[in-house]
Amino acid sequence: MSRRRSWWGWGWEDAAVTGDELERLAGMLAAFLGDAGTPRAAPDPARLGLPVPRVRPPDALAAIADASDEGRAAHSHGQSFTDVVAALEGDLDAPCDLVLRPRDEAEVAATLDWCSSARVAAIPFGGGTSVVGGVTPRVGDGYAGSVSLDLGGLDRVLEVDTRSRAARVQAGVLGPALERAVRPHGLTLRHQPQSYEFASVGGWLATRSAGHHSTFATHVDDRVEGMRALTPQGPLETRRLPASGAGPSPDRLLLGSEGTLAVITEAWLRLVPRPLHTARASVRFGDFTAGAAAARELGQSYLLPAICRLVDATEAFVNRVGDGSTSLLLLGFESADHPVDADLARALEICAQHGGIADPPEHRGGDGAAGGWRSAFIRLPYVRDAVARLGHIVETFETAITWDRFEGLWGAVMERTGAAVAGICGAGVVTCRLTHVYPDGCAPYFTVIARSRPGAQRAQWAEVKAAASEAILEGGGTITHHHAVGRDHRPWYDRQRPALAAEALAAAKRALDPAWILNPGVLLDAPGQSSPV
Amino acid sequence: MSRRRSWWGWGWEDAAVTGDELERLAGMLAAFLGDAGTPRAAPDPARLGLPVPRVRPPDALAAIADASDEGRAAHSHGQSFTDVVAALEGDLDAPCDLVLRPRDEAEVAATLDWCSSARVAAIPFGGGTSVVGGVTPRVGDGYAGSVSLDLGGLDRVLEVDTRSRAARVQAGVLGPALERAVRPHGLTLRHQPQSYEFASVGGWLATRSAGHHSTFATHVDDRVEGMRALTPQGPLETRRLPASGAGPSPDRLLLGSEGTLAVITEAWLRLVPRPLHTARASVRFGDFTAGAAAARELGQSYLLPAICRLVDATEAFVNRVGDGSTSLLLLGFESADHPVDADLARALEICAQHGGIADPPEHRGGDGAAGGWRSAFIRLPYVRDAVARLGHIVETFETAITWDRFEGLWGAVMERTGAAVAGICGAGVVTCRLTHVYPDGCAPYFTVIARSRPGAQRAQWAEVKAAASEAILEGGGTITHHHAVGRDHRPWYDRQRPALAAEALAAAKRALDPAWILNPGVLLDAPGQSSPV
Repeated sequence: MSRRRSWWGWGWEDAAVTGDELERLAGMLAAFLGDAGTPRAAPDPARLGLPVPRVRPPDALAAIADASDEGRAAHSHGQSFTDVVAALEGDLDAPCDLVLRPRDEAEVAATLDWCSSARVAAIPFGGGTSVVGGVTPRVGDGYAGSVSLDLGGLDRVLEVDTRSRAARVQAGVLGPALERAVRPHGLTLRHQPQSYEFASVGGWLATRSAGHHSTFATHVDDRVEGMRALTPQGPLETRRLPASGAGPSPDRLLLGSEGTLAVITEAWLRLVPRPLHTARASVRFGDFTAGAAAARELGQSYLLPAICRLVDATEAFVNRVGDGSTSLLLLGFESADHPVDADLARALEICAQHGGIADPPEHRGGDGAAGGWRSAFIRLPYVRDAVARLGHIVETFETAITWDRFEGLWGAVMERTGAAVAGICGAGVVTCRLTHVYPDGCAPYFTVIARSRPGAQRAQWAEVKAAASEAILEGGGTITHHHAVGRDHRPWYDRQRPALAAEALAAAKRALDPAWILNPGVLLDAPGQSSPV
Repeated sequence: MSRRRSWWGWGWEDAAVTGDELERLAGMLAAFLGDAGTPRAAPDPARLGLPVPRVRPPDALAAIADASDEGRAAHSHGQSFTDVVAALEGDLDAPCDLVLRPRDEAEVAATLDWCSSARVAAIPFGGGTSVVGGVTPRVGDGYAGSVSLDLGGLDRVLEVDTRSRAARVQAGVLGPALERAVRPHGLTLRHQPQSYEFASVGGWLATRSAGHHSTFATHVDDRVEGMRALTPQGPLETRRLPASGAGPSPDRLLLGSEGTLAVITEAWLRLVPRPLHTARASVRFGDFTAGAAAARELGQSYLLPAICRLVDATEAFVNRVGDGSTSLLLLGFESADHPVDADLARALEICAQHGGIADPPEHRGGDGAAGGWRSAFIRLPYVRDAVARLGHIVETFETAITWDRFEGLWGAVMERTGAAVAGICGAGVVTCRLTHVYPDGCAPYFTVIARSRPGAQRAQWAEVKAAASEAILEGGGTITHHHAVGRDHRPWYDRQRPALAAEALAAAKRALDPAWILNPGVLLDAPGQSSPV
């Protein structure tokens, strides 16, 4: 029997946090927030009272259309905390009218043709793991209806080129399926965002996803040799190349376009050999900024650690990899070609110069703090769902900033978000980790756990998030290093983005999508509409 | 006394190839081509009979306008072989009417305003080192005139951020001036294209320049934190960031736009520390394809050599770093943080597995083959000018290709270019080197030396180049890895570029440059004109 996906929350239904795990979580929330909360059940999607679909598919698309309540409900939100709470509350304010599940490019093209002629908004949907409202069909009232265009049927790895180490992959392929296809060749995409298990290649490309690894080709952008996409005006296929200097990169126009310019259907992606040599360590710092100074020097060393992740003391404690008194730097090196022990030794030397004390090497029972961290990391979205069910708040946000402004931004975000949590929620914690380290800056990633109550969660979080986003923008950061823009980040993206870049993007969109049916509200508003966010 | 720049050819007038050096060169040409040629003198620019300027600057721009014959002649061509021969022959078919030399952004903006209102084409001009017709004012007859917009006055390094290791640099800064400004901080841009001494930062950005180093951030694209540019619609400034996932990158729209969308005025560029540890070697391979296999494995090793340049036997011989029987792989590692001897040792192990034999380490007198190669490389543009004066042909072209198709493309380009040289010129050689090595492919760079005669050089080269470009396109390569598109590569670029990407780019241009005055003919034709190439 195949496992069932949760219609309202993360991943597999049978993997939800229940029983003892739920009790432990409630206990922890009680300790942190002064209130354990009471778990709610998710509503039956058939009883959400979804409005009757406003549009019917043409006969040619009837075979791939799904107008069921469960299909529509599952495709009418992403996986942000806000999305999950809205679903739990049965409040899908803008459900799609229809889910279309094309099995090939011709059916994608037919969908775009119909949507263009019938003025139906089309929302490309890969794994549905957007945490920024990127797949929510909140398209405003300028459309006859909206369809969720589920690319899950484009699920094949079409070619593997072992000489160049690359694969041609359809957009609907999910992380694990891609890895299963290339593993027999000793290869891996080495791209593991937290959403890895349920996110699609097309979604990664459309959102400029960044993976688990901390340095060197952090974003999927750098793995792209070439792409193929369908626009309402026809196909756009770029030449497969290791590098090129021929004009502005057409791939870079599609990367980050979030389904607004085209439906990405396939890509040639660079693969790497699976590592044969690894070296790991964990290092404790009394002070987060001392750890950040070490991370900066590591980034500037060009040792290129696969993992260089600095977790603050509170976050280490919450994730059971620290006692709450020290920040934790997770370090990992890997290579398929040569030993990396000397790299780790040099990295530990750098850490020691900044006061870092390495944990004693683990010889048994997994790989210590790094393994503990990794397990917690993968489990986190399920825990998030449980916190949502218990009536509290847990969510993350992230940015990137150059080193000269890092401490200022970090301090301001921690302070202002903390103040918002205290003022709005009454109790909670804000934690930070550096997920990616560059020679010229880093990507700080923040987690908020805060007290709330059913009915208040979304509004309270929205206020906290706005305070955090203001601090990020004012501190010089980007509104997103890798979560994308979607509908949720629009107000801050619009301020970050140069006005003329927005005009150029809108002009490009008009050329490719003249009926303006692709994901309206994401990145750009439909003409005549201001953002319905 | 300041040195004089050549108005017709490369670099400094006093560095031209003369005397004994010219005689040696003529002797070599005689040996290779059966004809030494006879050196011509360059014409006096005042006697070119340039047409009277069709436009006059408005009073507000009079102070920065130059309508002199020498100024116009020097700004009416780039530095391709064809450009140099045309200048030598006094045949500037499309001279600019005026050179404008803004001293600040306000004067750039005033220039764009005037050009937009008076329908005058504006050709951004940095160092003028384009080898693809990128600065040639061949704008068609849809304009009242053309001006060369010389950015040389924007020549300041505005800020150096030693913490993030980055600098804010004006577009007109040339390579050596940038290095002089950042060297006291122990930093370098580490970007050294052959044009380095005379090329500008703005030109590098506009053309997606690649530097001397063979792996890791090969293109200047990856050094850009943020940019500032002036469009005819106003300024476009991106946020300075180490990385971002907020929508399609606006920097990547400007990178490679070759002066068609905006005039880049400044950028925040990532710097690196000057290397303290180096390790170099040169390795001989009996067979170019064996060397390429080693280069591939080196690229896929992620050892990231700073230099990994495979020079074929003929090219090694011509450059006096080989006896003509073996290909030469130049290898170099460097780091500011840690010793790199183990990296070199592993690289030599890989080379040995492919039959490579390392030269004995040099202990005296420079650094052997690598040093010899480097000296020849820097001197080459002057030698090129001398060959042009002698009435023969020397020119280069380049591409990039994935490894699976490398041998096919290399073989076809060598054969078809060689056949064209033999058929059209009667005698000559075609050589190849791999300049950049990627995990998934490489950048082959070809040099042609061929017999010709005054009056026939340009037409003969155009035929050879067309044959080579056809072979590149058909072999799956890019028409340029880093020389850019300009006017010369347009026919092949137009075939390589997806049609809808061209439409999106044209739409973006209309949004930013509604009067279509910026560098018409480069990348895109002016509306209603087909390419005047």
